[in-house]
Amino acid sequence: MAKKKRLGEFALIRRYFAPLAAGAPGALGLTDDAALIRARKGRELVVTTDALVAGVHFPMNETPDSVAQRALGVNLSDLAAMGAKPLVYTLAIVLPKRCDAGWVGRFATALGRVQKAHGIHLIGGDTVATKGPLTISITAIGDVGRGTALRRGGAKAGDAIYVSGTIGDAALGLKAVKGGLRGLSARQRKALIDRYRRPRPRVRLGLALVGLARAAIDVSDGLAADLGHIAETSGLAAEIDAARVPLSAAARAALAHDPKLITLVLGGGDDYEIAFTAPPGASARVTTLARRLKLPLTRIGWMKKGKIGAVRIKDRQGRALRVDRGGYQHF
Amino acid sequence: MAKKKRLGEFALIRRYFAPLAAGAPGALGLTDDAALIRARKGRELVVTTDALVAGVHFPMNETPDSVAQRALGVNLSDLAAMGAKPLVYTLAIVLPKRCDAGWVGRFATALGRVQKAHGIHLIGGDTVATKGPLTISITAIGDVGRGTALRRGGAKAGDAIYVSGTIGDAALGLKAVKGGLRGLSARQRKALIDRYRRPRPRVRLGLALVGLARAAIDVSDGLAADLGHIAETSGLAAEIDAARVPLSAAARAALAHDPKLITLVLGGGDDYEIAFTAPPGASARVTTLARRLKLPLTRIGWMKKGKIGAVRIKDRQGRALRVDRGGYQHF
Repeated sequence: MAKKKRLGEFALIRRYFAPLAAGAPGALGLTDDAALIRARKGRELVVTTDALVAGVHFPMNETPDSVAQRALGVNLSDLAAMGAKPLVYTLAIVLPKRCDAGWVGRFATALGRVQKAHGIHLIGGDTVATKGPLTISITAIGDVGRGTALRRGGAKAGDAIYVSGTIGDAALGLKAVKGGLRGLSARQRKALIDRYRRPRPRVRLGLALVGLARAAIDVSDGLAADLGHIAETSGLAAEIDAARVPLSAAARAALAHDPKLITLVLGGGDDYEIAFTAPPGASARVTTLARRLKLPLTRIGWMKKGKIGAVRIKDRQGRALRVDRGGYQHF
Repeated sequence: MAKKKRLGEFALIRRYFAPLAAGAPGALGLTDDAALIRARKGRELVVTTDALVAGVHFPMNETPDSVAQRALGVNLSDLAAMGAKPLVYTLAIVLPKRCDAGWVGRFATALGRVQKAHGIHLIGGDTVATKGPLTISITAIGDVGRGTALRRGGAKAGDAIYVSGTIGDAALGLKAVKGGLRGLSARQRKALIDRYRRPRPRVRLGLALVGLARAAIDVSDGLAADLGHIAETSGLAAEIDAARVPLSAAARAALAHDPKLITLVLGGGDDYEIAFTAPPGASARVTTLARRLKLPLTRIGWMKKGKIGAVRIKDRQGRALRVDRGGYQHF
């Protein structure tokens, strides 16, 4: 086995992380005690923190590339759900012994690629070497016009419920990673696993939903649970048609082989699509937006008065489908 | 053994962490995807992230009270070193199995006490249960007048170097925790351990140094290493008299018993005092400030031209004292 290179904290920061901060003057080259951010006029800042732990949120031996994309992706997805433009982030990384300098280098390269795609920069953080599992905590900061942030609690009775993209791919992908999915071609399996491993935050959609959506959330805990969050904070109930929930070709193939997987599709997490509500009169604008972004935006149900926080899911026959709301299956 | 209570993530957040967010409207009750921050007019935001891991930064069985004080304290210390007023923070906490709901409750109570002392609020975060060690990552956000933040790189040749409070107590306290310190009374030992376990960030001092100090840093890696950071980013060298470094009565007693501990005092970390430089003409203002804050501010040396980043430490006889600059001893 090749000898692993060990670098001290300062060397790691200088070599791998400082270049990620080069485009942000407020990062002060990662050489100071903290970073500076100037809010633009008429904007407010949006801040979110998400932590990922190996063996919980991703497999122990996940590639640095996938870990980087996931760790930044889930945070950018939170900003997207608020309608915010991402700006900067801090990174606290707890490295187990197996993550040598080569691993960190590949991780930083992947962060750099995601950064570039979103026009954002690293501005600070911390690195610690431990015996524990790889743990990454990112705080992402964006901005939004004052008073215009999308919120979970803004839905009104009669609002249509939409979701972007397709639902359930990530949960099926995780099942495939674990070897528990059958009846798929290699390509379909790969497509599902990719959706699980490389979340693509819907940042452009979030920005475009400001002034159009009344409530929004990113689908991370699972469609049923996340619509439950919207319903609860809005003081309403949600009702959706399972048959209207948009599925990828791979997910349809998996369901054709085992129809019971529908509860995993609706209850599983990690899709990082956006679920949102909009008034019925906004449907033409939603259609136009979907075309402009080349991203399906599908109406799947309605917000209703009723038991606060309840999510009713109907199958093709109009019967209630039971979906585990605590359906978020950590790895 | 009493049965441990297990709570889900949402229940933990609702019960223990949401009350810590009650005073911050932008926290949105911790029920949304992200939090909102409005920068005040003429101010810019200051952001810092520090991660603490059990078994690395504090003993595995550290009390929740001490963990909370330490985790928030080290971040507030970074803000203090920039001259920033602390405002809000996010918390990512990775809980091992042994940290049950009771532990989390005591931890949250302690956070609440530190919050209150500094007038700050929790605005977001993440909780994860794992098999790994307790890991806490905090991102603290404060603000400062635009363009007035204290920086490491602002020192000029001829500046006096000052430190607040007393130096070396935390490193000696850690040595005492490990059972390696002799010749002290129980009270002295307790005083040193308390300094290690409960950092008190010098927030008021940091605020008062804006417009007075030319460069500042908090003493976390050790006095020698941290002055090295100021020297390096300022393109200068630093020279200090070991005999001028302010010591507590307990530290003096430890040194009287074992004079070799001086290298631990000067090289060890975790004091969370502020080291700063100011022009020679500012000495009267520094004296007045020390009196107003009831906090010793001691001149220990001078910034000089010379080998960039070098820190020369002279003993009473004017001889160079060798201090390990990588002197930061994780637990």
